[in-house]
Amino acid sequence: MASTSLAVNIERRSAGARQATPDEVAVEEPLEIRLGYATPEGRAVQSLSITMRTPGLDRELAAGFLVGESIVRQRDDILSIDYCGAPAADGQQNVIRVELSSDVRFDPARLSRHFYTTSSCGVCGKASLDALAALDVARAKRGTPKISEAVLTSIPARLRDAQATFRTTGGLHAASAFTPDGELIVTCEDVGRHNAVDKVVGCLLLDDRLPARDLGLMVSGRASFELVQKALTAGMPLLAAISAPSSLAVDLAREFDMTLVGFLRGETFNIYADSGRLAP
Amino acid sequence: MASTSLAVNIERRSAGARQATPDEVAVEEPLEIRLGYATPEGRAVQSLSITMRTPGLDRELAAGFLVGESIVRQRDDILSIDYCGAPAADGQQNVIRVELSSDVRFDPARLSRHFYTTSSCGVCGKASLDALAALDVARAKRGTPKISEAVLTSIPARLRDAQATFRTTGGLHAASAFTPDGELIVTCEDVGRHNAVDKVVGCLLLDDRLPARDLGLMVSGRASFELVQKALTAGMPLLAAISAPSSLAVDLAREFDMTLVGFLRGETFNIYADSGRLAP
Repeated sequence: MASTSLAVNIERRSAGARQATPDEVAVEEPLEIRLGYATPEGRAVQSLSITMRTPGLDRELAAGFLVGESIVRQRDDILSIDYCGAPAADGQQNVIRVELSSDVRFDPARLSRHFYTTSSCGVCGKASLDALAALDVARAKRGTPKISEAVLTSIPARLRDAQATFRTTGGLHAASAFTPDGELIVTCEDVGRHNAVDKVVGCLLLDDRLPARDLGLMVSGRASFELVQKALTAGMPLLAAISAPSSLAVDLAREFDMTLVGFLRGETFNIYADSGRLAP
Repeated sequence: MASTSLAVNIERRSAGARQATPDEVAVEEPLEIRLGYATPEGRAVQSLSITMRTPGLDRELAAGFLVGESIVRQRDDILSIDYCGAPAADGQQNVIRVELSSDVRFDPARLSRHFYTTSSCGVCGKASLDALAALDVARAKRGTPKISEAVLTSIPARLRDAQATFRTTGGLHAASAFTPDGELIVTCEDVGRHNAVDKVVGCLLLDDRLPARDLGLMVSGRASFELVQKALTAGMPLLAAISAPSSLAVDLAREFDMTLVGFLRGETFNIYADSGRLAP
């Protein structure tokens, strides 16, 4: 089990007082994701991405990343996920390789431009929304879980309870998939907000639960374009954030009939896009 | 002047009450950064990066990004920075091109791997620290502004005062360069935390103030490896964050004699790496 926090000795100062004290910080390490795939001549391998992440659930992180890029859709699309190479002295492994099933088509030409979400866009907000039509986001449109206000406003406290590491380091983002009854079926943490969502989606994929049309996604921070896209590609029709959404997140949610909630705090929240999923 | 916030109509719910209301969200749009550079055969151009950013200070964002990647070091390294192509219907421009001076060496082979900070690393924390030695971070070592506790603890409130947009949308990260006297000489906001720092560094570069050995950097959120790297490449010897640092941020700061402060709130803060710059 990879450690998500690390002990460091620090000095704490408060109103002139100085105190040397042990502290814990969230672990951040790079993870390279490599992809093996079938070609007419046999199989090939390609480095896809290097992300700074908190170790743990690396297989899920890699799987979820591939869902967000619309490279895989379901568990059967993946043959295997394994670390490459020898571990470092501390046992840490920072390269992971996903082998795609031979019937999954992968076009390495996509990598010739900068990867990640925005790679597919024509470098304008509207164009990038259009480009998403090429991704497999339409499946979110059919997701119609009804969720009550009482359940929705209960999720942040449940998320905080599930964030064991956060209480120690204060340095991790969290994301959770939840049912219309308010049950958190998976919660993941990471120094990177995208990684926390990728891990949640990867857990759902490896558990053969995608598309997750019956689940909502909760995130501990803000809702960006990229997080809305990740929810959509996982088929999740509702995204709730503790903090603010961006303009492009709102546009994208409205375009694809997704429910987008922000500033979910206490009994109060803002609905930026609805589509009738929020019961009074 | 690009708008940093956008009006949207939302529904606010609070303890069962429903209210349709106008709201404002932070604008998020993609920006493609292209680089023109000299080759033995003439000049070439290469797409470097696409980042999701809040429009405004795009020239500074592009310049600061190039500092963080150690492609440029000073104002004279850049011939020009201009938008490419026609603006969108709303006047928005999302492609910017930086022309390097002909005596600046740029190796496009660096782009064959995933770009951004982590591209240079051997995909393990220690290796990535070693790789940074190749970047121009050593200049931070020589920066030795002394800063008093009273000044340091005054910076967060000054940063909040300077965050005009944040008060409206709640959705923007902020970064600021400050003097040992506590004066904020530049403050920038963005939906992306890295972009806010790139904009600050770009402002300093275009003002011919790099390396900024006499300035500290304050950020509104957490301190990651990448933000420490950006401060170091700008020559800034002190990074203060409102929230937590990561393990690799602490390692990097200690390795390069940088002062790293976290959880700077009220009269209290934690010192993760010192190097004698903090006066009692």
